[in-house]
Amino acid sequence: MAGNTFGSVLKITSFGESHGAALGCVLDGVPAGIEISAKEIQVDLDRRRPGQSEITTSRKEGDRVEILSGVFEGKTLGTPMALLIRNENQKSGDYSKIKNIFRPGHADFTWEKKFGIRDFRGGGRSSGRETVARVAAAAIAKKILVKQKIQVLVHAEAIGCVEAETFDPKNIQKNAVRCADSAAAKEMEKVILEAQKRGDSVGGIIGIVVRNAPAGLGEPVFDKTEALLSHALLSIGGVKGIEFGVGFAAAKLFGSEMNDEFISLKSKKTNRGGGILGGITDGDEILIRLAVKPTASISLSQSTVDFKGKAQKIQISGRHDPCLVPRIIPVAEAMVQIVLADLLLTSKNDKI
Amino acid sequence: MAGNTFGSVLKITSFGESHGAALGCVLDGVPAGIEISAKEIQVDLDRRRPGQSEITTSRKEGDRVEILSGVFEGKTLGTPMALLIRNENQKSGDYSKIKNIFRPGHADFTWEKKFGIRDFRGGGRSSGRETVARVAAAAIAKKILVKQKIQVLVHAEAIGCVEAETFDPKNIQKNAVRCADSAAAKEMEKVILEAQKRGDSVGGIIGIVVRNAPAGLGEPVFDKTEALLSHALLSIGGVKGIEFGVGFAAAKLFGSEMNDEFISLKSKKTNRGGGILGGITDGDEILIRLAVKPTASISLSQSTVDFKGKAQKIQISGRHDPCLVPRIIPVAEAMVQIVLADLLLTSKNDKI
Amino acid sequence: MAGNTFGSVLKITSFGESHGAALGCVLDGVPAGIEISAKEIQVDLDRRRPGQSEITTSRKEGDRVEILSGVFEGKTLGTPMALLIRNENQKSGDYSKIKNIFRPGHADFTWEKKFGIRDFRGGGRSSGRETVARVAAAAIAKKILVKQKIQVLVHAEAIGCVEAETFDPKNIQKNAVRCADSAAAKEMEKVILEAQKRGDSVGGIIGIVVRNAPAGLGEPVFDKTEALLSHALLSIGGVKGIEFGVGFAAAKLFGSEMNDEFISLKSKKTNRGGGILGGITDGDEILIRLAVKPTASISLSQSTVDFKGKAQKIQISGRHDPCLVPRIIPVAEAMVQIVLADLLLTSKNDKI
Amino acid sequence: MAGNTFGSVLKITSFGESHGAALGCVLDGVPAGIEISAKEIQVDLDRRRPGQSEITTSRKEGDRVEILSGVFEGKTLGTPMALLIRNENQKSGDYSKIKNIFRPGHADFTWEKKFGIRDFRGGGRSSGRETVARVAAAAIAKKILVKQKIQVLVHAEAIGCVEAETFDPKNIQKNAVRCADSAAAKEMEKVILEAQKRGDSVGGIIGIVVRNAPAGLGEPVFDKTEALLSHALLSIGGVKGIEFGVGFAAAKLFGSEMNDEFISLKSKKTNRGGGILGGITDGDEILIRLAVKPTASISLSQSTVDFKGKAQKIQISGRHDPCLVPRIIPVAEAMVQIVLADLLLTSKNDKI
Repeated sequence: MAGNTFGSVLKITSFGESHGAALGCVLDGVPAGIEISAKEIQVDLDRRRPGQSEITTSRKEGDRVEILSGVFEGKTLGTPMALLIRNENQKSGDYSKIKNIFRPGHADFTWEKKFGIRDFRGGGRSSGRETVARVAAAAIAKKILVKQKIQVLVHAEAIGCVEAETFDPKNIQKNAVRCADSAAAKEMEKVILEAQKRGDSVGGIIGIVVRNAPAGLGEPVFDKTEALLSHALLSIGGVKGIEFGVGFAAAKLFGSEMNDEFISLKSKKTNRGGGILGGITDGDEILIRLAVKPTASISLSQSTVDFKGKAQKIQISGRHDPCLVPRIIPVAEAMVQIVLADLLLTSKNDKI
Repeated sequence: MAGNTFGSVLKITSFGESHGAALGCVLDGVPAGIEISAKEIQVDLDRRRPGQSEITTSRKEGDRVEILSGVFEGKTLGTPMALLIRNENQKSGDYSKIKNIFRPGHADFTWEKKFGIRDFRGGGRSSGRETVARVAAAAIAKKILVKQKIQVLVHAEAIGCVEAETFDPKNIQKNAVRCADSAAAKEMEKVILEAQKRGDSVGGIIGIVVRNAPAGLGEPVFDKTEALLSHALLSIGGVKGIEFGVGFAAAKLFGSEMNDEFISLKSKKTNRGGGILGGITDGDEILIRLAVKPTASISLSQSTVDFKGKAQKIQISGRHDPCLVPRIIPVAEAMVQIVLADLLLTSKNDKI
Repeated sequence: MAGNTFGSVLKITSFGESHGAALGCVLDGVPAGIEISAKEIQVDLDRRRPGQSEITTSRKEGDRVEILSGVFEGKTLGTPMALLIRNENQKSGDYSKIKNIFRPGHADFTWEKKFGIRDFRGGGRSSGRETVARVAAAAIAKKILVKQKIQVLVHAEAIGCVEAETFDPKNIQKNAVRCADSAAAKEMEKVILEAQKRGDSVGGIIGIVVRNAPAGLGEPVFDKTEALLSHALLSIGGVKGIEFGVGFAAAKLFGSEMNDEFISLKSKKTNRGGGILGGITDGDEILIRLAVKPTASISLSQSTVDFKGKAQKIQISGRHDPCLVPRIIPVAEAMVQIVLADLLLTSKNDKI
Repeated sequence: MAGNTFGSVLKITSFGESHGAALGCVLDGVPAGIEISAKEIQVDLDRRRPGQSEITTSRKEGDRVEILSGVFEGKTLGTPMALLIRNENQKSGDYSKIKNIFRPGHADFTWEKKFGIRDFRGGGRSSGRETVARVAAAAIAKKILVKQKIQVLVHAEAIGCVEAETFDPKNIQKNAVRCADSAAAKEMEKVILEAQKRGDSVGGIIGIVVRNAPAGLGEPVFDKTEALLSHALLSIGGVKGIEFGVGFAAAKLFGSEMNDEFISLKSKKTNRGGGILGGITDGDEILIRLAVKPTASISLSQSTVDFKGKAQKIQISGRHDPCLVPRIIPVAEAMVQIVLADLLLTSKNDKI
């Protein structure tokens, strides 16, 4: 069964395994006339790419994107855009150790159960590398948002027990953890490096703020804005939870504490709902938080079983990201952009 | 734009406003040969229906379901099943007070922005009444799960600050809050009644445990099990967050604390992942938690504006549920059943 | 598997068996603000209804439509419209004769093979009665077309060997066969009555002309205008072929005879392509012809087998339409309207 | 709006312009465990490729396919298969002549109307080259059919006024027109060469016979087998009509002449219905005929207008196929294979 296509009017169909020939996607439903170049897409891919700091894996991946179709003389044609990123490091290394063993916290076991076959060289299609296609597609989605001045800001709100206390978006690109609070960022880096030193990894929280989204986006019932965003963001490997506005804290509030009172047709006293009412955006900031689990690949020794069920010990060698948060941030941003661009397009038929 | 259809092979298309003629759905993709009767569906609808205890609204709704198609001599035909529930209480009462005023925490404002028109008698399609169609459809989905002995258990894990401390599913139907911990249930009821007395409402947490789901369900990438379940559950009005397994607590864990080590091909030492690895079920219990906000309708006075932006005070009269948790529980159960039944059907084409 | 939903932005989901409780549909994706009433839909249903002349079945079907949702104070809400038509004649008559026998030219056999169960009282879901839902839905689609002055004209172009020679749309509603050529209409009626007298039935050709469709509708590649219209029209029981413009005659033409030369940006010398170039409308009249087979239900004796494969003779009693053409005409009109309304809505995102 | 994806469980998403970097597709929904290689796909592409005989264009196109994903160690992984075919001849030649002029019978004008921009170097996405992706995808679909011994036979039934009189599938690959009647094939070639000599082109009829399709495929109502096949086949550029079984001839038949009487549960006296009853296959041969228009590109002088509406003369230079029939044959075969493979997969959920 399918499952590799996402979206309603703007549809991304993604493909590729981590150690296959290439990854990429087809983005269909792009209106004609949008200016776009491979160079612009590359900027976003470079931001996603690993090997950029002490706290991310040093694996070299060029991640050069090629636009195969849908663009002519610098503008979209209205036809599907195919975006291609070749895998450069698909050496046929020695995989005999991991071929028949199920890594804890990884999809090896479930993939085997589902398909009866898997590309055991790395995670195959369950690898985080798959997200490169999403980031590439979002570079086009972003073009649709920019016309409306919609901004999607994503940062590391917490790493382990360290939490950001201020939010200045300008700081996000200035530190390796992508935290909007420069002081907290330094503490976060420490936490990550210490975990790494022990051969361990650490989790965190991603905070998302969408500015300037117009009121009226989202569909009633099954395709509420929260529902679509949750679908999009929980489809990122490693994300284990999501909340909107005050989120789980709402459980302990009374209605009189939760309801956001209107001051005018453009503003409310508070924004506990996170910019969404009844599944439809209300014009306020959309506020989202994601729970990110610690990286499953750790070099500490773990117990597991092989494909015959026999007990085994495993130590995962190679360098891996000791924390997924900085890597997931551009992917989360991409998914939010794809959902919002799609909602902007679908909203054209709300009224006659 | 659409948005009223959910599912891949098993598709529910829902319709109806709270004060229109009827609510219902068309369930397409049901295999032929499943035994089903209106009586069986009615049992589930009765469980969802309000007016069943002191802590739920006393509004009388018969909610009688009629099967309009797709069933012949007690068995499904393989054709679409249309399920109809007439609204009984659509009195053309006096709505002049709420017609032009935006209730805080409700969808009045956003609906107006999106469509420029709305059925102001109650919430229209944004009303919780819409969920009756989902519960009806799930009665058929459940039939597909039962053949695999899959059980979906849903209860009130917390109301305000009171948390359940034990989990005995037999207790769920024995108390009005639908909590699996009988002692906690009593405290929860108190919290709800106290809020109600003050004209206020209270939030809570819903816990979901799925037993006997086979390993191998869910699709890689966009249709991961968590992604589909999140889409389904965040499409329920009032739900503001979701987490799987340890969820948000994962943010503070190290990888060595998070990873579930395999003991055999059928068991793991722990289940912090919540029964899902790489988006695919691993055969363990699926563990989900939902954050539910306090009911937006409260009789305390609130500030708001009318459609011209002029400041107004509003006190919402009529009896409303002081806590959504007990009402949402059967709906959450329904949505999980619909997702899992769909995944069971789609999984038939995983391998040749 | 599904198969009861059609459309991209404007989606119709249909349900119902000929002898079940009701037939109907949910029409999703209707923009808010369209004026519509049950009375208007009824006009179209009445035109479809049998029992209107000597040449159609005298079975009485009230076919009263009820709008269950999606409309408030005479206007569409932007929410799904559920349309309900109760079956009035579902007497549990004596079906023992046809229960276990496969009628030639009917879907009894194939339905049995596919589902292993069928509603043997009449055709069940394979009955022509199913099309009542399409005609009801098209009454709303038509509202979208009317704003653009798009007209869909459908008539009997041939019955048996009698062909229409003139085309005056005003005549279509003036005769029982729905032919735009009044003189030919009389001959056609004769052919039908003669066949009926012998216990036989007769086939024909339906001609469709769409006026004022704007240039630029239709999608490249899989959703070409011809492809969508063919899907829509070949989904009507009894239709065995379709052609656009000169259609099959194109096989014997040279390119110099086929190509329509442009005179201006608004006109061509000829319209052999039938108003579509490369799958996209060119602003000219869309010309379509449908081949309709003779009614399968005839009272002449036929050879067949029962469910055990034993040879049987069958004579189908009851009154049936001796010619499907007049009955299919409003259904074909409906399907063209649904496709074009959908294309008008989807085209809003062609360009940025 | 999308429109570049086709299929229900087995979904092809196609991309590419004739003079862009590449063409290709993503095929999603392929079950895991199917043996496939680029070499096998290449065989089908080579059969589609032009430059193979006197009667097809001599343009050299290597059309080498590369499998980018979804296959590991010679077997499908259950993940999306991306298939890539690079364009080799995208010289930036002199297109100034055709840039601003609308070729009669081509999509230049309608494309301009729809998107306001087009790749004027050749047909862009409206070019027949687009079909290379369909043929590549069908090589995998065919693997699913072969397990059921389903055969799709496609040949030139008529070219201009020359009709095939016998049907021996072994002959199809033995002549350049791909006709199953060797004697007729020679006459057909003559007709084509004569048209070509005059700078003209010629149309024809394609005949399709599907053998061994099991009874029970196809969905009631909107996704009848005829409806899906029509959608698929009318999405091929140049096809202007389709008919099933006796097709348009049914218009002149009586019911007693049309109905196929059953002899046993496995056979009928005749097959006028073309192997489909009520939209569902009956186990007999599926019989289809397609009307193909003469190639629009001819070197004879034609009248047309430029983008300002000014009258112009145009002579299309370069070598073009003087008849589309032999070129469309492998594409029609591909589309039928894709539809049937999809129906085989979807049918797994017909019954519980």
